[in-house]
Amino acid sequence: MIEILDTTLRDGTQGEAVSLSSDDKIAIAKRLAAFGIPLIEGGWPGSNPKDAEFFARMKGVDLGETQLCAFGSTRRKGLRPEEDPSVAAMVEAGTPVVTVVAKSWDFHVLHALEVSLEENLRMIEETYRYLVGEGKRVIHDAEHFFDGYKANRAYAMETLRAAVRGGADTLCLCDTNGGSLPEEVYEITKAVREAFPGVTIGIHPHNDAELAVANALAAVRAGATHVQGTINGYGERCGNLNLTSAIPNLMLKYGLELKGLSRAKLAQLREVSHFVDERANLTPNLRAPYVGDAAFAHKGGIHVSAVLKDPRTYEHVPPEVVGNTRRVLVSDLAGRSNLLAKLAEAGVEVPKETAGALLSEVKQLEHAGYAFEGAEASFYLLAHRLRGGAMPFSVEGFTVFVHVADADPETPTWAEATVRVRVGGTLQHTAAESQYGPVSALDKAFRKAIEPFYPEIAEIELSDYKVRILSGQEAGTASGVRVMIEMRRGGERWSTVGASKNNLEASLKALTDGYAYALVKNQPVFKG
Amino acid sequence: MIEILDTTLRDGTQGEAVSLSSDDKIAIAKRLAAFGIPLIEGGWPGSNPKDAEFFARMKGVDLGETQLCAFGSTRRKGLRPEEDPSVAAMVEAGTPVVTVVAKSWDFHVLHALEVSLEENLRMIEETYRYLVGEGKRVIHDAEHFFDGYKANRAYAMETLRAAVRGGADTLCLCDTNGGSLPEEVYEITKAVREAFPGVTIGIHPHNDAELAVANALAAVRAGATHVQGTINGYGERCGNLNLTSAIPNLMLKYGLELKGLSRAKLAQLREVSHFVDERANLTPNLRAPYVGDAAFAHKGGIHVSAVLKDPRTYEHVPPEVVGNTRRVLVSDLAGRSNLLAKLAEAGVEVPKETAGALLSEVKQLEHAGYAFEGAEASFYLLAHRLRGGAMPFSVEGFTVFVHVADADPETPTWAEATVRVRVGGTLQHTAAESQYGPVSALDKAFRKAIEPFYPEIAEIELSDYKVRILSGQEAGTASGVRVMIEMRRGGERWSTVGASKNNLEASLKALTDGYAYALVKNQPVFKG
Repeated sequence: MIEILDTTLRDGTQGEAVSLSSDDKIAIAKRLAAFGIPLIEGGWPGSNPKDAEFFARMKGVDLGETQLCAFGSTRRKGLRPEEDPSVAAMVEAGTPVVTVVAKSWDFHVLHALEVSLEENLRMIEETYRYLVGEGKRVIHDAEHFFDGYKANRAYAMETLRAAVRGGADTLCLCDTNGGSLPEEVYEITKAVREAFPGVTIGIHPHNDAELAVANALAAVRAGATHVQGTINGYGERCGNLNLTSAIPNLMLKYGLELKGLSRAKLAQLREVSHFVDERANLTPNLRAPYVGDAAFAHKGGIHVSAVLKDPRTYEHVPPEVVGNTRRVLVSDLAGRSNLLAKLAEAGVEVPKETAGALLSEVKQLEHAGYAFEGAEASFYLLAHRLRGGAMPFSVEGFTVFVHVADADPETPTWAEATVRVRVGGTLQHTAAESQYGPVSALDKAFRKAIEPFYPEIAEIELSDYKVRILSGQEAGTASGVRVMIEMRRGGERWSTVGASKNNLEASLKALTDGYAYALVKNQPVFKG
Repeated sequence: MIEILDTTLRDGTQGEAVSLSSDDKIAIAKRLAAFGIPLIEGGWPGSNPKDAEFFARMKGVDLGETQLCAFGSTRRKGLRPEEDPSVAAMVEAGTPVVTVVAKSWDFHVLHALEVSLEENLRMIEETYRYLVGEGKRVIHDAEHFFDGYKANRAYAMETLRAAVRGGADTLCLCDTNGGSLPEEVYEITKAVREAFPGVTIGIHPHNDAELAVANALAAVRAGATHVQGTINGYGERCGNLNLTSAIPNLMLKYGLELKGLSRAKLAQLREVSHFVDERANLTPNLRAPYVGDAAFAHKGGIHVSAVLKDPRTYEHVPPEVVGNTRRVLVSDLAGRSNLLAKLAEAGVEVPKETAGALLSEVKQLEHAGYAFEGAEASFYLLAHRLRGGAMPFSVEGFTVFVHVADADPETPTWAEATVRVRVGGTLQHTAAESQYGPVSALDKAFRKAIEPFYPEIAEIELSDYKVRILSGQEAGTASGVRVMIEMRRGGERWSTVGASKNNLEASLKALTDGYAYALVKNQPVFKG
């Protein structure tokens, strides 16, 4: 039975561009508990007030079977544990489990911590004895264990003995600098496993050599049963062990039982991964193993036709076991068979004659800077239009006026937009203003124009908006921008694309495609 | 001696969102040859005209010691090799080396290729005998070798024997579905190594289980000396073996010699990685091992102070060996010591009193949606201003007017902007128009206002422009956008940030920060 400790909320937030508010941290803790993670490391209460606030707020939150851990370090030199404010903060966090980082590499003890080798051993033993006396389960995070073991094996092992004497019940071996190799991790973990019978052995890898997942698996093969990592591999430098890869590898490849996690829970993996990215406001990694949008996406023509015959030909596991789906990509590498498969996937039947016109229009739009990978609603809309489907409206023009009177960031800015939209036989000419800039003003004016005809659009929200400049090569003729928009209505989401030299025109194209898709997708003609 | 085959231009382009023009492919081939990659797989001339064009154009290009390979598959059933147009295309490509994919998994032979097991063996042997007769070095890409070996070991080995009988000089074992484990790859590669003495054994991993790098290293430990991968790990689904991690691991961790690559060449690794991303118009992976911007970035306060004492405390290799640099990050996790270290890095001395004001202004701006990680020019400008440095201009207001008369994409759109900028004692009120939308019009009007005072800005180009919506939480109070801009002058690049509810205001802030940084960064007051 393997026990996972998730440290997204502590070590994960050390990653560049990762920033979580207390609300985000509470939402993530609840989601990970519902997923079934048995141990969640919530933060370092002794190091910053935000983390202390998190633990205070979590006292009223029920996580079911999941236990929360507070992180901290061994007492400072010369103090008794009960006198050290950072140790006291761990106790006050009120969690049943504490994770305590301690030095195992003599070089670090002498040059970073600047204490004697003997004092470091006393700091470990005394801190743990005190924490165990306070009723805590103590997990010993042996910082730089592998580097320490290679530099001074006897001393590294001595630090583990001090931890066990102090009452630690888990010895977690950290590859803090992330540079260890799987065969070293295997051998060293095995030596520790043999030297400490009856003690839980853990592994905490980092990804600096792109080997964190392999190192976690190597440690488990050598007898480790406690694994520390983060969702999506967030963490300092190149990140921590990516649990969204390690969990399915342990369950599906090694057939191991993971505490709290079942096959049914595993099918939530992609959703958990995206939930955390969403909360951290980070773009999900397209190519992430198991959970990425591209993980089961087939582009090469040969791959596509073989996968359509039998998915095992180019998939190592079925996408649905991790909550992902198979996708066929449309691109200039792909031929007519990808295009037709893509349409069939959406239940759209396109006559062979139309397929040729569609392929050529897709290529022409790609040349102008469009990208339909990741903007599938725009692609379906194009197919709908080419096979003669009715469009709910057509945009005939717009104006935008923005005036910013002074550069004081406290002064609200002001934007006004007009749009001309033909809906059925009527030309709607509407205007709106917004404090949120021209795209917001355009969106409001556009909604005003079509809402009398399609009141259901009131339920639609814009959930993501991204702009990217196009290079000369990519745009074919001139530089411009590509706008990608995601909309949602309840739990349903769809994405669209617009490209233009003018970012407002590209934005309006992507916006109006989003509304049009929502309006036509249930029409019988679109269903084929 | 290990031989690297780079397949960025062939298998890499199968990745979602990867699209390269012929110009891009030629530029990348030249850059990889200058770097020292001995074998470059350029494309599949038999499958698409774009790749055939690439090989035709490459006939006039001198790659020095580097050899180009054409990719293809074994002849179709029932044809003689010389009758198969796809085999002919490989010969016509005119490369000294060909890489030929062939089936080794009986399931694929019967269900994807739909030929008999015996015919598949004949297809391999006859195709290679023909290609060797045409003077080619033949690399046998044994598709799905590991899955095939596990399913039907005898048949998988039989396909390798057919390849050797036909004259293949390299047997490259492909983990096509990317699901194999390092210990399996080690055992199976070792068995093949022992069965085929004198033949070069290769490995071609995919990253579907986040184990591609570990699998390549396992194969090399088992005796493989030919390694296939792509720059930045581009490729179908989760990508191919990432050479920007595998190359430094093989050289620095195993101390192996790599054909064509020296320690001096290795220091180009980061630049090669970014060159390829730039050509593919993909955003570099922040957290990429060795080459990413975050690979040697330190954020946690403890890490920062230890790294400043001795970098070995939190770095597995020195960043300069792969052409990267150490960075200290500014964020709400970091304290005053990070901030001061960051400023010292840039040669800016800030008195202790100012540091407090700077930290609080950084926190307030972050609350409003700014992010200084990745926008270091804006950060330095802020420090410059707070310590009393003179600013070259101040923006007092702007207007933008955009009118799009009809929705025809062929009709040019039209945008006009005015700006009011104070430069020295003068208020410049200028106007400009652009076909490239309002940001371009703003930029032109702004340049018109300051160019009479600072003619050197004519040399500055905008090299990247990105917009991201801010969530309610992240912006603190209301949704808005964050604009990140990169500018360059010659080989020098710098990045700035602007945040606002109004995307045009955010864009103008980031733009003007970019110009201001270029103008003040060499002033004595800024240098400290």
